[in-house]
Amino acid sequence: MAIITLTTDFGEKDHYAGTIKGEIYTEIPDVKIVDISHSVSPFNIPEAAYIIFNAYSSFPKGTIHVIGIDSELNKENKHIAIKLDGHYFICANNGIMSMICAEIVPEKIVEINIHDKTGTSFPVLDVFVKVACHIARGGTLEVIGKSIDNIKPIRDLHPFVNEDKTQIIGSVIYIDNYGNVITNIRRKFFKSVQKGRSYEVYARNHKFKTIYNKYSDIVNFDLDEDKRNDEGKGMVVFNSSNYLEIAVYKGNPENVGSASTLMGLKLYDTVTVNFIKD
Amino acid sequence: MAIITLTTDFGEKDHYAGTIKGEIYTEIPDVKIVDISHSVSPFNIPEAAYIIFNAYSSFPKGTIHVIGIDSELNKENKHIAIKLDGHYFICANNGIMSMICAEIVPEKIVEINIHDKTGTSFPVLDVFVKVACHIARGGTLEVIGKSIDNIKPIRDLHPFVNEDKTQIIGSVIYIDNYGNVITNIRRKFFKSVQKGRSYEVYARNHKFKTIYNKYSDIVNFDLDEDKRNDEGKGMVVFNSSNYLEIAVYKGNPENVGSASTLMGLKLYDTVTVNFIKD
Amino acid sequence: MAIITLTTDFGEKDHYAGTIKGEIYTEIPDVKIVDISHSVSPFNIPEAAYIIFNAYSSFPKGTIHVIGIDSELNKENKHIAIKLDGHYFICANNGIMSMICAEIVPEKIVEINIHDKTGTSFPVLDVFVKVACHIARGGTLEVIGKSIDNIKPIRDLHPFVNEDKTQIIGSVIYIDNYGNVITNIRRKFFKSVQKGRSYEVYARNHKFKTIYNKYSDIVNFDLDEDKRNDEGKGMVVFNSSNYLEIAVYKGNPENVGSASTLMGLKLYDTVTVNFIKD
Repeated sequence: MAIITLTTDFGEKDHYAGTIKGEIYTEIPDVKIVDISHSVSPFNIPEAAYIIFNAYSSFPKGTIHVIGIDSELNKENKHIAIKLDGHYFICANNGIMSMICAEIVPEKIVEINIHDKTGTSFPVLDVFVKVACHIARGGTLEVIGKSIDNIKPIRDLHPFVNEDKTQIIGSVIYIDNYGNVITNIRRKFFKSVQKGRSYEVYARNHKFKTIYNKYSDIVNFDLDEDKRNDEGKGMVVFNSSNYLEIAVYKGNPENVGSASTLMGLKLYDTVTVNFIKD
Repeated sequence: MAIITLTTDFGEKDHYAGTIKGEIYTEIPDVKIVDISHSVSPFNIPEAAYIIFNAYSSFPKGTIHVIGIDSELNKENKHIAIKLDGHYFICANNGIMSMICAEIVPEKIVEINIHDKTGTSFPVLDVFVKVACHIARGGTLEVIGKSIDNIKPIRDLHPFVNEDKTQIIGSVIYIDNYGNVITNIRRKFFKSVQKGRSYEVYARNHKFKTIYNKYSDIVNFDLDEDKRNDEGKGMVVFNSSNYLEIAVYKGNPENVGSASTLMGLKLYDTVTVNFIKD
Repeated sequence: MAIITLTTDFGEKDHYAGTIKGEIYTEIPDVKIVDISHSVSPFNIPEAAYIIFNAYSSFPKGTIHVIGIDSELNKENKHIAIKLDGHYFICANNGIMSMICAEIVPEKIVEINIHDKTGTSFPVLDVFVKVACHIARGGTLEVIGKSIDNIKPIRDLHPFVNEDKTQIIGSVIYIDNYGNVITNIRRKFFKSVQKGRSYEVYARNHKFKTIYNKYSDIVNFDLDEDKRNDEGKGMVVFNSSNYLEIAVYKGNPENVGSASTLMGLKLYDTVTVNFIKD
């Protein structure tokens, strides 16, 4: 049974996601539809890029991923379908796919040209669903578009390294449900620059000297629980997706505060790592 | 396989939607349950009416739609089941169905009378699920209630036209995830009054002379991207459901603002269209 | 077909829930995954305990419930799997299961010891999903852990009764989507202490002399609708889960206010019932 995933900024209230699902089940009754997220911030392409990048590969090969963020067709925003790593992706050519394509070379990219409704303001329904069902029925990309070689990039995909390799200058690409602040600095890249040296991580006026592997590594279990005082403490981890993340232990944006609210970190803010000569 | 959709104001946190799903799967293991929305604003009947109206027809004929908003049974709020357009709807007789029934004559309306728990404060679980499963197993409406002819209306279902047909007086019936403000003025109705004349759309102290068909039609693609200044601009479109909508291009309630927040438009506010003699 | 439910504090935006689902479908294509909630407040164990307690039993026997709140493995937070009432539960031993286990004796509790990634910061993916799929394929708990006898409690699970049995001192354990405030005083317990006496319910400076069975029981249907003035009124009900609940009739946290916002009631606040000598 084919799987179609949905990643959109439709939100949880409106009828859009329900309409999409109804349409898909009408076209193909025995498909599996999986919501990845409908709560991408409106028009937030970096967020969508991060979410789909981190979710897609857990699905079986052959899964079809529909991504509906800023997808209105116009001369600067074409519709594309991509085959990559055995998965299919359908979205606008607006940068969403650049994070995945920077890792893995696409097998095929087509610019979709089967629009009978070019003027639609609901292209996920009128175009993406049709393409997804075409693929789910075994159709090929060749039939629905013409091959292209490149896709649009997003800003701040990669961090910078200074000339003498003593500093990584990264930036914030995502803020998660716990208010944790995720940068574009990945573990592998960090290690390749670090080469074993000591380091300091700077985010605004905060400095950190340790990067943890999980959140509770910050807890001093030798102390009695009421003397620990670790909840709400800032810390740095490589998160479960291997990105360097500024976190707050047991943070909660709604009460104790989070890395984002407590340290005032926002999308695209700079986070730097200085390496120290030993 | 039968499809049961859910549209409620249960929200995303509580156990209510999960409990409903468990109960349905316990009664009928091989049914498909589809969430349309659980984020209808509490007790907001116009919102629910708009959502189910715009979602239902994308589902296959035979789909059973459970709508759980303000559904406690009492002498003024009876439970009904409706067959219409090949679909089934189960809800309270509180106006939710009036938007759909204004378009399409119901084949059958029954007032449900099989309650063994009239005192329940969770009628979606104790009544609607039982009715939905009855229908999913092929049961008829006759068995679960007595036929009635009329259902309760909601206010502001239709816009008004002044006597000399120079003005449509509409009102706001829905505000979507992007903060866009949707009126009860539909494209077909607009055209039937307009008869080719020029027009001006008024929403509070804002005036618009163009109604677009999609959002990016407002963009001047001849200008360089950094000179355009179109994000955050107010505009009017006929939306994907063919309702006249006051929008903000790439609006976002949380940062740049939206039609609702920037223009101060709320549910039931008036939006007028003046037609101009040529 | 096995059913796996998910109850987490992942929120609606991030990729975590999508990743979990992808992984499960990759391991077992024909399983049914049901979201109970991903909007538990971050790290809020009492909330999660209340939600899973009220949702689980509506699912068919054999259902596997994955609960991902505060689940990072460390020396004070072990992973457990429980068989109880024909259902399976997989979570951290942090109090989440104490509400259910206070009602029904578990058939089996094991402390999971099959971790190949003890250092993971995403244990729901790296541990719980593996255990869930093991059980879904018919595997036993014995294989994945060693039997234990007790689990961690949560605070304020039960209300107190004073010595001469004239007062129940309860506390707030949950605030729902409507802002209604749910206490740990259950109907059966209340009745067992009440023994037919009159009572007064106190919540901060509010006093109530009636406990209703459904919300609209507060409405005086003899009055005309515009003279009723019942919306927004405080009231007490035994809710659909049989907990004593301080409610506001047709409350809505976003506009008219709710029991929580209007009366300033928060998690762990005290609610008392005084019984009156006749």
